[in-house]
Amino acid sequence: MAPKTVLIVYAHQSARSFNSAAKDVAVEAFTQQGYKVIVSDLYAMNFKATATTEDITGGVKNPEEFKYGEETMQAWMEGRLSDDIIAEHRKLEEAELVIFQFPMYWFGVPAILKGWIDRVLTQGFAFTLQTVYDNGKFKDKKAMLSFSTGAMESMFLPDGLNGDLNVTLWPLQNGVLRFCGFQVLAPQVFWCPANSPPEVRTTRLESWRARLETLLDEQPLTFASSGMFDLSFSGGFKLRPEIWEEQSTCPHGISTGHHLGKPLPPNNQLKAGDKRGDAV
Amino acid sequence: MAPKTVLIVYAHQSARSFNSAAKDVAVEAFTQQGYKVIVSDLYAMNFKATATTEDITGGVKNPEEFKYGEETMQAWMEGRLSDDIIAEHRKLEEAELVIFQFPMYWFGVPAILKGWIDRVLTQGFAFTLQTVYDNGKFKDKKAMLSFSTGAMESMFLPDGLNGDLNVTLWPLQNGVLRFCGFQVLAPQVFWCPANSPPEVRTTRLESWRARLETLLDEQPLTFASSGMFDLSFSGGFKLRPEIWEEQSTCPHGISTGHHLGKPLPPNNQLKAGDKRGDAV
Ligand SMILES: Cc1cc2nc3c(=O)[nH]c(=O)nc-3n(C[C@H](O)[C@H](O)[C@H](O)COP(=O)(O)OP(=O)(O)OC[C@H]3O[C@@H](n4cnc5c(N)ncnc54)[C@H](O)[C@@H]3O)c2cc1C
Ligand SMILES: Cc1cc2nc3c(=O)[nH]c(=O)nc-3n(C[C@H](O)[C@H](O)[C@H](O)COP(=O)(O)OP(=O)(O)OC[C@H]3O[C@@H](n4cnc5c(N)ncnc54)[C@H](O)[C@@H]3O)c2cc1C
Repeated sequence: MAPKTVLIVYAHQSARSFNSAAKDVAVEAFTQQGYKVIVSDLYAMNFKATATTEDITGGVKNPEEFKYGEETMQAWMEGRLSDDIIAEHRKLEEAELVIFQFPMYWFGVPAILKGWIDRVLTQGFAFTLQTVYDNGKFKDKKAMLSFSTGAMESMFLPDGLNGDLNVTLWPLQNGVLRFCGFQVLAPQVFWCPANSPPEVRTTRLESWRARLETLLDEQPLTFASSGMFDLSFSGGFKLRPEIWEEQSTCPHGISTGHHLGKPLPPNNQLKAGDKRGDAV
Repeated sequence: MAPKTVLIVYAHQSARSFNSAAKDVAVEAFTQQGYKVIVSDLYAMNFKATATTEDITGGVKNPEEFKYGEETMQAWMEGRLSDDIIAEHRKLEEAELVIFQFPMYWFGVPAILKGWIDRVLTQGFAFTLQTVYDNGKFKDKKAMLSFSTGAMESMFLPDGLNGDLNVTLWPLQNGVLRFCGFQVLAPQVFWCPANSPPEVRTTRLESWRARLETLLDEQPLTFASSGMFDLSFSGGFKLRPEIWEEQSTCPHGISTGHHLGKPLPPNNQLKAGDKRGDAV
């Protein structure tokens, strides 16, 4: 049997950065566990970030009125996507776990990683309008964010200056990962390594290594399931009315509760590592 | 007196797209009002999206352990940023309003626009750790998102399949724009132009044109003010305890209420155009 595969999509310019160290820890840990590990080192690959006509080989159908989404979906069906996109598709197909390793840039991913998301998660390949969320194409795969910050942890609490980290991560964890069906594992957050003493950084990397031992046994984050929604144009893809009632007594964090308008109260926050659904 | 200036940061590949039309409407409307309008047409400019050593001229200080944030801040002080970044700095300095015009890509901005954010909002120029949010460098400027979607509006309601649009926009509206001090105007959302009949699209563009007549008189979105927080390391940059009490009877949307854990109930949603703070 072929070994199981982990894909690490890694976005840092420097091999001596903290992010590089976090990536190396994951490579080592999974290799030791007998996994095949593939790293897409985006800066080293000089990965193209922008969605352009060059992503399609043999000429686009309508250069005058170029529609990136439609033309790349078509090109995917016809095997005419550019080689760099196809190479990432192959890696994704093979992987049962995808880890995105990056420094937080402007409350999100660095542009080079956003480019990977925009270009690699081609309609047809990564989703269709019929297969999203619970029914997503990658529902048998797991994915997670692993990132470092400049901010300290308290700034990203619900009552912190930047607001609840789960809100900031919603577009990535729900809009990208869960949209494609991935089971989303709790994020690994390295708070402000640049201002931490060296021994704290080392400890953080060791706890990452320890987490990786059992990462694939973790319960994924919970999100409102697709079955809670009326998935029809007439129903507007909105929560079915009875769901409000049913869920009214449950405690909710952003992943599940966002839709229900009931985030956790600030004195009832989840901590990273809690298994109850929401992260941090 | 020199005319007032509007900067449109525009990210679409095609001059015949709906986004191009929305950009053109803004150029015309502001030109008619006597403004100078500058357009940064990112794809046409072949704008570099990725944050690399090339953003610094004359060599980086520490190529072995390259730290993008530190080195670009240093280069800004020494006038050694690359010409394309400096050109955008000049435009930003001149503008009193910045409009970001783009198609939503993966619950956020296209990578080329994320690259503009990552590379142009240089530490030192766009913010310092002492001047963020209410005290941000751009507090006398306004900014807004204007974008189109593939999704229909109901999908981005709090009880819609994708969750509250305000949550999805939080990293951009709070984490980027308000972080730099901008007064954030309500977003202009063009819901699913591709599946709208031509006359609906025309009507939407006309209502955009109408909004632009008085755009600069609009009340910006409200966010929790910096004064609500204990802005000290010992206080963890968290809401001051008395604020919970003070605010407990106010209704809140995500912009203000996110920090307070009290989003609007679903039957009390704001509609786009409401002036009360949150968008949509
Ligand atoms: C454009 C831009 C936007 C940003 N936006 C945000 C934002 O929105 N929110 C936010 O919170 N932050 C933001 N930041 C800050 C950014 O997230 C941090 O600078 C980054 O996460 C730090 O990670 P790094 O890998 O670059 O750290 P580095 O600076 O590379 O590393 C930190 C320290 O760890 C050391 N180290 C390396 N390897 C090891 C090892 N094996 N063991 C122990 N120590 C090691 C390094 O030598 C260094 O001293 C932004 C930065 C930039 C440039
Ligand atoms: C990588 C990727 C990720 C995406 N992620 C998301 C997502 O997360 N969420 C989401 O909702 N959507 C998403 N989409 C869909 C995307 O947001 C829409 O395709 C886009 O917003 C449509 O805008 P456009 O300018 O490209 O439209 P176009 O397709 O260019 O235009 C739509 C129609 O308007 C017509 N038109 C042009 N000019 C005019 C005019 N002057 N007057 C009247 N009609 C005119 C055009 O001819 C066309 O028929 C994604 C798409 C891609 C490619």
